[in-house]
Amino acid sequence: MVPSKEVIVGIDMGGTSLRALVVNSHNEILAVEKEPTNVTQKPDALIRDLAAMVEDVVRAAGLRKSQLRAVSIGAPGAVDPEHGMVYHAPNLGWDAVPLGATLGKLLHVPVFAENDVNAGVVGEHALGAGRGAKELVGIFVGTGIGGGIISKGQLYLGSRGAAAEVGHMIVQVDGPLCGCGNHGCIEALASRTAMERDVREAIRGGEKSCVLKLMEERGKDRMTSSIIQRALKKNDPVMRKVVKRAQYYLGMLVASVVNMLDPECVVIGGGIAERLGEYYIAPIRKTAYENFLRRHDAERVKVVCGTLGDNAGALGAVVLARRRLNK
Amino acid sequence: MVPSKEVIVGIDMGGTSLRALVVNSHNEILAVEKEPTNVTQKPDALIRDLAAMVEDVVRAAGLRKSQLRAVSIGAPGAVDPEHGMVYHAPNLGWDAVPLGATLGKLLHVPVFAENDVNAGVVGEHALGAGRGAKELVGIFVGTGIGGGIISKGQLYLGSRGAAAEVGHMIVQVDGPLCGCGNHGCIEALASRTAMERDVREAIRGGEKSCVLKLMEERGKDRMTSSIIQRALKKNDPVMRKVVKRAQYYLGMLVASVVNMLDPECVVIGGGIAERLGEYYIAPIRKTAYENFLRRHDAERVKVVCGTLGDNAGALGAVVLARRRLNK
Repeated sequence: MVPSKEVIVGIDMGGTSLRALVVNSHNEILAVEKEPTNVTQKPDALIRDLAAMVEDVVRAAGLRKSQLRAVSIGAPGAVDPEHGMVYHAPNLGWDAVPLGATLGKLLHVPVFAENDVNAGVVGEHALGAGRGAKELVGIFVGTGIGGGIISKGQLYLGSRGAAAEVGHMIVQVDGPLCGCGNHGCIEALASRTAMERDVREAIRGGEKSCVLKLMEERGKDRMTSSIIQRALKKNDPVMRKVVKRAQYYLGMLVASVVNMLDPECVVIGGGIAERLGEYYIAPIRKTAYENFLRRHDAERVKVVCGTLGDNAGALGAVVLARRRLNK
Repeated sequence: MVPSKEVIVGIDMGGTSLRALVVNSHNEILAVEKEPTNVTQKPDALIRDLAAMVEDVVRAAGLRKSQLRAVSIGAPGAVDPEHGMVYHAPNLGWDAVPLGATLGKLLHVPVFAENDVNAGVVGEHALGAGRGAKELVGIFVGTGIGGGIISKGQLYLGSRGAAAEVGHMIVQVDGPLCGCGNHGCIEALASRTAMERDVREAIRGGEKSCVLKLMEERGKDRMTSSIIQRALKKNDPVMRKVVKRAQYYLGMLVASVVNMLDPECVVIGGGIAERLGEYYIAPIRKTAYENFLRRHDAERVKVVCGTLGDNAGALGAVVLARRRLNK
């Protein structure tokens, strides 16, 4: 039996899909809902979708809405967690949307918001691969590369709230153009988007690869993590080369991050890490360790794969909400 | 009049010279002594030199030794501040030297030790260019490149005490070889050593430059900051090109650091910054601002030249000692 007002709904709000979890005070997941994000509609309509989704997932957990203590959302973009405002979320087409206040009025419970990657890092820190670490850096590799920093056990936000943009650390001055307009950011070298660019370039250059055929067969217009996994299983030479290169760059990034912050733990998450696991992480860890300035006790810095998978963001949002409620 | 037990002697212990300051409780410098570091002698003999230097500088301030409350030393290498141990200081040829305990026995006052660059960053934060910043990153450019991080107003040391090795952030994967054995660290691209390498290479390649002549005239076998300044005053084309390139790399480094840590303030210190001032800093700041991920309020992140010059390390050591004594 779940006591009154004990569950929190955590939502991971992506540009592609929404994922909602009902979580009890023991951090157990009681129900999960997933649906596509309709980004063509206006913010208010999308927020009504979120309200309906919350009611659905609470019902799916066999609970009443009166048992809901709060909702907490990881949103993709610049979020002001104090006021539940989403300032800039290009994936949603949002700018200055009062997500917390609007959804709160619809549901009559407190609604919290946090940047989705920060939420994911808090999830891995509190409940996943980074449990117990005082200082932790999370790196999430997907369409882009995002990150989060835990310092003294708490999310580190920086002076403008703009910290932990790991994807825009420059590891190759004058390297390939990044979506942000700069050159040589790690995102332009090792994200799924960068890998897809490299695969397509190799194929155009005449190298043999099954990737485009796999994408066609599976009806994908983008090189998803599942395509990457399938191509590797088929020993596709282009994919092997491209993954190897991305791992090398990520290893160098991890070395840079550790030389700067010396955390106890670096958690690597996101779709590719989740699908490929240790196959993906091991070469990153090896390159990183080889490039730490302080090598003799390199192993004290754990470089590990996230363990919460798709639930990291929503679980982290729940953890953050509970911290705010208990303040 | 200085009340009893009120002054602290701060020492910046470099591989080339020792600098000792007598500092009162208002952080006023009452006397300064400087002497060359005799690194050919054993640690115990060098520590006896330090003891004599402390007595000299206290006398130079017109004070008695009984008025000395503590001594605090910034030492070049891996320092354990809890125990005043210097673990690894290649510039001194030291390994596992109990600096605090040994000097404390000679002087009969508490002796504290901290890494010299960390001490310099604390100095600039507490008394120099970074006053009032909660989050600050210091970057000191000299023979190498060192750094320090202030987080929530306190020195951030990382999980192994190995944080803030800014010089070994990799900004050009597969770039020039660094002293640490890796490639493309900022130290291998923008330190005085890297600049000297580039100048010599350009001259070997046939480019016209007055640098070697200046070094000969001034009796220098290395390209010191004063040589850099003189060559720039003479509009030396090779030096201008080399300085410009180093500034570009440092700007990219600052952008990376800010994208990661979003501090309120980045202080750039060391000999070159001290001599060239805004001429050196302005292009670094410009490149950095252009490469921040969050650009619209870039100016909120100050990128400034250190203001304490040669005294930064010794003053920072004093500040750290006072914090420890007041705990």
